[in-house]
Amino acid sequence: MRNLVAHKSCFLVLLLLLLFTSQFSSATKKTLNRDQPCKRFVLYFHDILFGGNDVANSTSAAVANETGLGNFNFGKLFVFDDPMTKDKNYLSPAVARAQGFYFYDMKSAYNAWFAYTLVFNSTEHKGTLNIMGADIMAAQTRDLSIVGGTGDFFMARGITTFETDTFQGAKYFRLKMDIKLYECY
Amino acid sequence: MRNLVAHKSCFLVLLLLLLFTSQFSSATKKTLNRDQPCKRFVLYFHDILFGGNDVANSTSAAVANETGLGNFNFGKLFVFDDPMTKDKNYLSPAVARAQGFYFYDMKSAYNAWFAYTLVFNSTEHKGTLNIMGADIMAAQTRDLSIVGGTGDFFMARGITTFETDTFQGAKYFRLKMDIKLYECY
Amino acid sequence: MRNLVAHKSCFLVLLLLLLFTSQFSSATKKTLNRDQPCKRFVLYFHDILFGGNDVANSTSAAVANETGLGNFNFGKLFVFDDPMTKDKNYLSPAVARAQGFYFYDMKSAYNAWFAYTLVFNSTEHKGTLNIMGADIMAAQTRDLSIVGGTGDFFMARGITTFETDTFQGAKYFRLKMDIKLYECY
Repeated sequence: MRNLVAHKSCFLVLLLLLLFTSQFSSATKKTLNRDQPCKRFVLYFHDILFGGNDVANSTSAAVANETGLGNFNFGKLFVFDDPMTKDKNYLSPAVARAQGFYFYDMKSAYNAWFAYTLVFNSTEHKGTLNIMGADIMAAQTRDLSIVGGTGDFFMARGITTFETDTFQGAKYFRLKMDIKLYECY
Repeated sequence: MRNLVAHKSCFLVLLLLLLFTSQFSSATKKTLNRDQPCKRFVLYFHDILFGGNDVANSTSAAVANETGLGNFNFGKLFVFDDPMTKDKNYLSPAVARAQGFYFYDMKSAYNAWFAYTLVFNSTEHKGTLNIMGADIMAAQTRDLSIVGGTGDFFMARGITTFETDTFQGAKYFRLKMDIKLYECY
Repeated sequence: MRNLVAHKSCFLVLLLLLLFTSQFSSATKKTLNRDQPCKRFVLYFHDILFGGNDVANSTSAAVANETGLGNFNFGKLFVFDDPMTKDKNYLSPAVARAQGFYFYDMKSAYNAWFAYTLVFNSTEHKGTLNIMGADIMAAQTRDLSIVGGTGDFFMARGITTFETDTFQGAKYFRLKMDIKLYECY
C-alpha cells in the first residue's frame, strides 16, 4: 500500500515537473543575464569619407545628398566598407570589415541609423554578424541589435554598444563597438 | 520487491522525461501562441513629408527620386524621424520616435519596404525595437518583423502589424502599428 | 522504510533534473545542427535591371549612382521587386517575390549588400521572410541571415545561402538561394 503511495506521489511530482518544464520551454518570458554574454569582444570602426579623389585611403562615400530638412544632413546616406581593428590605430591590421550603410536622420541634431555586416575572414574567426539600429549620437553609449550571424557566429544574436571615440569633422570618425552575443550556437 | 519496482518505474519515467526535455530544449520546432504575445501595445505613426520649406512641421524627406519604372514611385526613398503617439492625433505627446527609411518598390501599384528603429525615452519605457519588412499596401493589414531590441526591450523579437489609418496624398499618412513581442527577456 | 528511501532518491533525482532542465532552458549556449534545418527550399532570384524604357520586363532599378570610389560601382543602390522561381527559367511561375534593395560596397572588386523580404502568397505558402547580409561575391557561396518571418513563417530564423547562377553584364543576373530555417514555430 505504501509502495503505491510512493509511486503515486512520484508520478504527481513528475506530472507537475513535466508541466513546469514544457511551460518553460515554450515560454515567451526567459531570463538572460545582460552581464554575461556568451561571447564578447571590442573592435574599433574607422570611417574615412571619400572626398572625390582620395580613393586609396577612403572607406566610405556619400550616395545621396542631405535633403535640406534642418541643418544636420537629414537624409544624407553613406555606403561603407570600413576596417575593424582591435586597437584605435586605423593602420592596425583589420580583423574584420564592416560593410553596410548609415544615414543622418534628425533635423535638430546629428543622429544616425546603421545597418551593416561584420565580415570576419581570419584564422581567428570566419563568418558574419548582421547588425541594425539607431545610432543616437546624443547618448554617451547606444545599443544596436545583432540580428543574426553566419559561419563561426551561426544563428547568433546580441547587442553592439557604440561609443564615439573620435570625430574629426566629416572626414574621419572612429567608433568603439562593444560586441556582446547572448545567443551562441 | 514492490519498492524496487516503484523505484525502477520511477527512474524509467525520469529517463523518458529527461529525453523529452532535452529534445524539447534543443528542438528547432517550438510552439508560440500567436494570440498571446508577452508584451503588446498599439501606437500611431505619423509621417509628414518635407516639401522644401516647411521644416518646422516635416518629419520625413525624400532622399532619392522615383526611377521611372512604372507609375508608382518605384525606388523613391524616404528617411524619417516620425513621432509615435498613443492616439490618432499627431499633436499628442510622442511616446516614441520611429527613425529609419522606406521606399516604394512596385511598378504596378503602391507598395513599400521599411526598416526602422522605435526609440523609447520616457518614464514608461527606455530602449529600442528594431523592425524591418515589406509593407504590402494592397493588404488590409501586413506584418513586419521585430528583429531585436535594447534597453527595456533587451533581445526582444516579435511582429508589428501595419494598418493604414489615413493617407492624405503625398503630404501626410498615418499608420496604426500593433506591436506584439513574442520573445521577452 | 524502504518506501521512504525510494521516495527520497526519487526526489533527489527530480531535483537534479529540475536544476539541469532550468539551466538548459535559460542557457545562452545551445546546439543546433546545421545540417538539419526545420524547413528548407531552394529558389532562384531573377534580377532584370531597368534601362530606361523596358518597363514591361524590368524588375529592378538604380536609385543612386556609383560614387567614383574605385571602379566597381561603389555605393550604387538598386531597389527590386524580383520574381522567385523553383527552376532557373525566369518565365516559370513565381512562387514568391523578393522585395528590397542591394548596393555595391567595395572599391577593389564587385561586392554587394542585401536587405529584402521574400513575400509568399500562394496556396502553398502565405507569409514573409526577412533577410539581410553581405553578398561577398568573391566567395563561391555566401550566407545571409533570415532575421524574422510572418504568416506561415511566423517568428522564423535561419540562413539563406547565395550562389551566383548567371551574371549577364549589368542587365540580368540570377542567384540560387538555398533557404534554411533553423527556428520554426
